[in-house]
Amino acid sequence: MPEQLTYYGNKTEIALHEAQAQYTNCDVDFENKPDWFVKVNPAGKVPAITYGGPSVPPDQPSPESAKIAESVIILEFIADLYPSSGLLPSDPVKRAQARFFIDAVNNKFNPLAAGWMRGGPVNGLVEAIKTLQALLPEDGLFAIGDEFTIADAVIAPAWARLRLIVDKGIGEEFFAQNIIAAREALESPELAKFVAYGNRVLERPSVKASWHEDLVAPYFEKRFDKLLKSLASTHSV
Amino acid sequence: MPEQLTYYGNKTEIALHEAQAQYTNCDVDFENKPDWFVKVNPAGKVPAITYGGPSVPPDQPSPESAKIAESVIILEFIADLYPSSGLLPSDPVKRAQARFFIDAVNNKFNPLAAGWMRGGPVNGLVEAIKTLQALLPEDGLFAIGDEFTIADAVIAPAWARLRLIVDKGIGEEFFAQNIIAAREALESPELAKFVAYGNRVLERPSVKASWHEDLVAPYFEKRFDKLLKSLASTHSV
Ligand SMILES: [Ca+2]
Repeated sequence: MPEQLTYYGNKTEIALHEAQAQYTNCDVDFENKPDWFVKVNPAGKVPAITYGGPSVPPDQPSPESAKIAESVIILEFIADLYPSSGLLPSDPVKRAQARFFIDAVNNKFNPLAAGWMRGGPVNGLVEAIKTLQALLPEDGLFAIGDEFTIADAVIAPAWARLRLIVDKGIGEEFFAQNIIAAREALESPELAKFVAYGNRVLERPSVKASWHEDLVAPYFEKRFDKLLKSLASTHSV
Repeated sequence: MPEQLTYYGNKTEIALHEAQAQYTNCDVDFENKPDWFVKVNPAGKVPAITYGGPSVPPDQPSPESAKIAESVIILEFIADLYPSSGLLPSDPVKRAQARFFIDAVNNKFNPLAAGWMRGGPVNGLVEAIKTLQALLPEDGLFAIGDEFTIADAVIAPAWARLRLIVDKGIGEEFFAQNIIAAREALESPELAKFVAYGNRVLERPSVKASWHEDLVAPYFEKRFDKLLKSLASTHSV
């Protein structure tokens, strides 16, 4: 299972775990996508789920089941199917806050953090974290209050990867001083509120259960090695 | 009220109308944004709504009200507040379908249609329409079935503008043959299903009530004039 797939799949896994849903997981080898997968998602993207219809093996999807794709839509779907999971509270204002947090992760945090991951300065990462930190409630364990919601499921995989890279020093040759600066930033009082929140998210059993360090760490080691080599060859030209 | 603001505001207006919600509308002059608006949306974007708290004039927002921004989040909020409006059905699969349609409008239809609006060939527009047409139910009046939902509220303002431009030939000097090609495409059998759907959406009372042709038409006339002039000056250099 390539790491890029587990990243998106993680959010779904976390939500299904929170909802104590019964489901059959089916890993799809993205580089050798099986022919049947087009019946689950014509766009070919993962995660995608089937729901309802007759009981069939995952690689023989029934035309009678509903097919649902796009990770945020899948999370809302799981929250709708399992209202007592608390994945989305019933209060409309709280629901809007969860969606606003998710929007900020996808449209602000992720692009800024990705800049740092491509070798950009630590400021981008600090700004990414501050954007989300400003949305955290004054009191409350999680993104919108004391309950774990789909907002927390969305930040979890990104935060877990970031912490892994920074804490283990993965790609430190590529990052050079940027990784030391990131470590210092994560220890600074100005980001302490978010870091404490992030730690709570990573301690959540559903998040731990979906975390595959044995896949994620080598993926990033290779990725930063490749980036380092492409930098070196650019400089030598 | 500049037209660019009514475009996003339209979706909110349509949903509020469908929900028969009581609300106070407040137009914000985006080019001379009033100081108080930062209290409604720190990001400064419209539409934004306040909900709850004491009864106050819109230009004196209370710190006790909830502030909600981002047009899709506002639509979900209105659907949550008014479940009997049918803006989102209760069936989780139907809700996921509405969200998938909205995602396709925002991430596929709009970028493709925008390419045509900048002078691109009609193929992009045809592809944009076909993408949504493929999502329409076999039978059913609207995007996900017989009920008017937030999915229809999202496509309505974009479709109304497109039809206005094509039907009235706004910007025809800028578009040249691209506008004739678009008119022919909208009359062709291959897009007939979507065009019939689009017409039904535009006939919806909530959509009609939020449509301001007197603002939209001059906005586009100016915009295409400007584009035409910038093209002419590029060519003469
Ligand atoms: Ca989006």
